[in-house]
Amino acid sequence: MKKLKIPAVPSIRRLPSYLHIVKQAQADGNPYISGTVIAEELHLEPIQVRKDLAITGIIGKPKKGYPVEELIAAIEHFLRWDTLQKAVLIGAGNLGTALTGYQGFRDHGLEICAAFDSDKKKIGKKIHGIPIFGMNELTEQINVLHPALAVLTAPSPSAQLIADRLVEAGIDAIWNFTNVKIKVPDNVLVQQEDLTSGYALLGVMMNTRIQQASE
Amino acid sequence: MKKLKIPAVPSIRRLPSYLHIVKQAQADGNPYISGTVIAEELHLEPIQVRKDLAITGIIGKPKKGYPVEELIAAIEHFLRWDTLQKAVLIGAGNLGTALTGYQGFRDHGLEICAAFDSDKKKIGKKIHGIPIFGMNELTEQINVLHPALAVLTAPSPSAQLIADRLVEAGIDAIWNFTNVKIKVPDNVLVQQEDLTSGYALLGVMMNTRIQQASE
Repeated sequence: MKKLKIPAVPSIRRLPSYLHIVKQAQADGNPYISGTVIAEELHLEPIQVRKDLAITGIIGKPKKGYPVEELIAAIEHFLRWDTLQKAVLIGAGNLGTALTGYQGFRDHGLEICAAFDSDKKKIGKKIHGIPIFGMNELTEQINVLHPALAVLTAPSPSAQLIADRLVEAGIDAIWNFTNVKIKVPDNVLVQQEDLTSGYALLGVMMNTRIQQASE
Repeated sequence: MKKLKIPAVPSIRRLPSYLHIVKQAQADGNPYISGTVIAEELHLEPIQVRKDLAITGIIGKPKKGYPVEELIAAIEHFLRWDTLQKAVLIGAGNLGTALTGYQGFRDHGLEICAAFDSDKKKIGKKIHGIPIFGMNELTEQINVLHPALAVLTAPSPSAQLIADRLVEAGIDAIWNFTNVKIKVPDNVLVQQEDLTSGYALLGVMMNTRIQQASE
């Protein structure tokens, strides 16, 4: 398989915020929402909003704006949020527990249906109603559950080893919250989540503010 | 104050990954690292690496690459990661606990020095050695601790109310992990963290893979 080319990553990152606002417009009973209103709400330029939403295939109508129901369906389809995605969670620590309980994921089709941990005190217990299995049950459970993806929140030193086991068990999409760049075969998708990247942006904003204040 | 213009957000988001790799080169005893090596490691084009790193003010040398020590110092300075930043955490739930224990933040100058929660069972206890105070102590503790920022991991319904109280107590930078677009005065910086945006990217990758396989 050739390497995937994903277009417009920053636009895709913004789509969940658009969806949130357009759903609010739907709840308020509005059949249309204007790009300008969305732009103001998200502190973006209207042209950016038009560009971002165009990747979902929906174009706004002059004077009316975007048809709310169509736009919601288009964004959800584009993000695959109209499909139920079963997932396994590896690492039932605080972050794993937080993600499992996160309503935003449940609302968008992500169903974490089993958790795995090597801590014997956790095995057999539940987090947010989801059973915690031992790591030795990983392959067996994946064969039973057929999850579409694995969410990796285990400690970093074991990240690569776990990734190898996931791939061997047939997992071909990994959402990686560790800071390890895991190595996987070309057919396996990895979304690397870096919690420090938001902190980096905040730091640059703070620096920029100080510079501008002294200009 | 005029609105802050932050250049090259995707480049800034990638800088923590660069830093990670360059620090590894330093640990291996290499005085230089080539842009091509960094590009390969992160699955980026070399020209993108040059462009991204240029925002820190460092230019690679022909044939040698980037001077490792200078590059580390430049990235850390650009991200404000060479400065200790005291922070308060609002919401001592699973996500807040995970962030407090996250070594990646401690390594980069973020020091969460107090947590706040409205749950009486949590008040007076500690997470990762950090004391949990009641919400009624927020203003008083901010006056004592002078934090540079607040990390907001409280339940969404109370996000705006808490943001108002933080601003009133003098906080001018908020790292917001709730899904509420909080409204703050122009002088207050907000970094909105959206955990669903990585999930959105993963969904688009999965869709793209299916399309390409059927082409």
